[in-house]
Amino acid sequence: MTISMYQASAPRFAHTLKNLSAVLDKAQAHCDAKKIDPLVLTGARLYPDMFAFARQVQVSCDTAKGALARLAAVEIPKHEDTEKTFEELQARIAKTLEFIGSVKPAQIDGSEEKEIVLKLRGKDVSFKGQAYLLGFAWPNFYFHVATAYNILRHNGVEIGKSDFLGAS
Amino acid sequence: MTISMYQASAPRFAHTLKNLSAVLDKAQAHCDAKKIDPLVLTGARLYPDMFAFARQVQVSCDTAKGALARLAAVEIPKHEDTEKTFEELQARIAKTLEFIGSVKPAQIDGSEEKEIVLKLRGKDVSFKGQAYLLGFAWPNFYFHVATAYNILRHNGVEIGKSDFLGAS
Repeated sequence: MTISMYQASAPRFAHTLKNLSAVLDKAQAHCDAKKIDPLVLTGARLYPDMFAFARQVQVSCDTAKGALARLAAVEIPKHEDTEKTFEELQARIAKTLEFIGSVKPAQIDGSEEKEIVLKLRGKDVSFKGQAYLLGFAWPNFYFHVATAYNILRHNGVEIGKSDFLGAS
Repeated sequence: MTISMYQASAPRFAHTLKNLSAVLDKAQAHCDAKKIDPLVLTGARLYPDMFAFARQVQVSCDTAKGALARLAAVEIPKHEDTEKTFEELQARIAKTLEFIGSVKPAQIDGSEEKEIVLKLRGKDVSFKGQAYLLGFAWPNFYFHVATAYNILRHNGVEIGKSDFLGAS
């Protein structure tokens, strides 16, 4: 009785991306109610050289799909980073969830020792599958989803941590 | 070959808390260089009803120690939430790392199905060990560490995502 690589990846990424999608719905509703241009929020940043909200959502999606594709040794689906509106970002999340749903446990399980090579700042960095998932993909994924949440919260959107965590 | 509950908990919490400790060092150095009162940063928030930086660090520590103690079925070490300075917060992280280091793999492994009951907003919520670790402890832990990072970043401390992720 242990944790499989699939259990520690696909369903957890999917759960958190669904929560993120619900957070985007609340942000859209906030813009409607307060007559705020949604592009102000999707373009908002916590600091001038940090990624804007839209990019945080794109990178959250990329981290999830990249992790699963690499562990399964399938091609990473290419998504152009053109989303600007909440609607477009919702479509990006939906495409990512669709990919996550298409990956079967048998493609991921047993990848603990698989060699994963990433290009980071122009250098090849090599990981074993389990170290990559737990030590790189997870913290990166949660970092970008939490930062997306923090950007909205900082701008007054009424969300709480339970929106980030979702129903258990 | 699968992931053990220990591998998915203690070493990952410890790694990220060590990174957080290094981030605090950079924040302290930033205050020294710019003649900023450190209490301004440790008391900073992204929004008036969000936790301040010091509380984000305390809750990061609590999430890690609470998760390990619950999975191991040992008493959760009690730490008073009195820290205000970077030095005091460093001591809080150090105490937490010491507790994490004291927990042995045999105390955590096999806790996948253990019943974990949490009091959340006054209600008992029950989880199985694995669902608790992957679906509750992890996202909570990374949420608070990322928010602590975001508060500093928002205030101009020169840190990057590699400080959050640490060396692989």
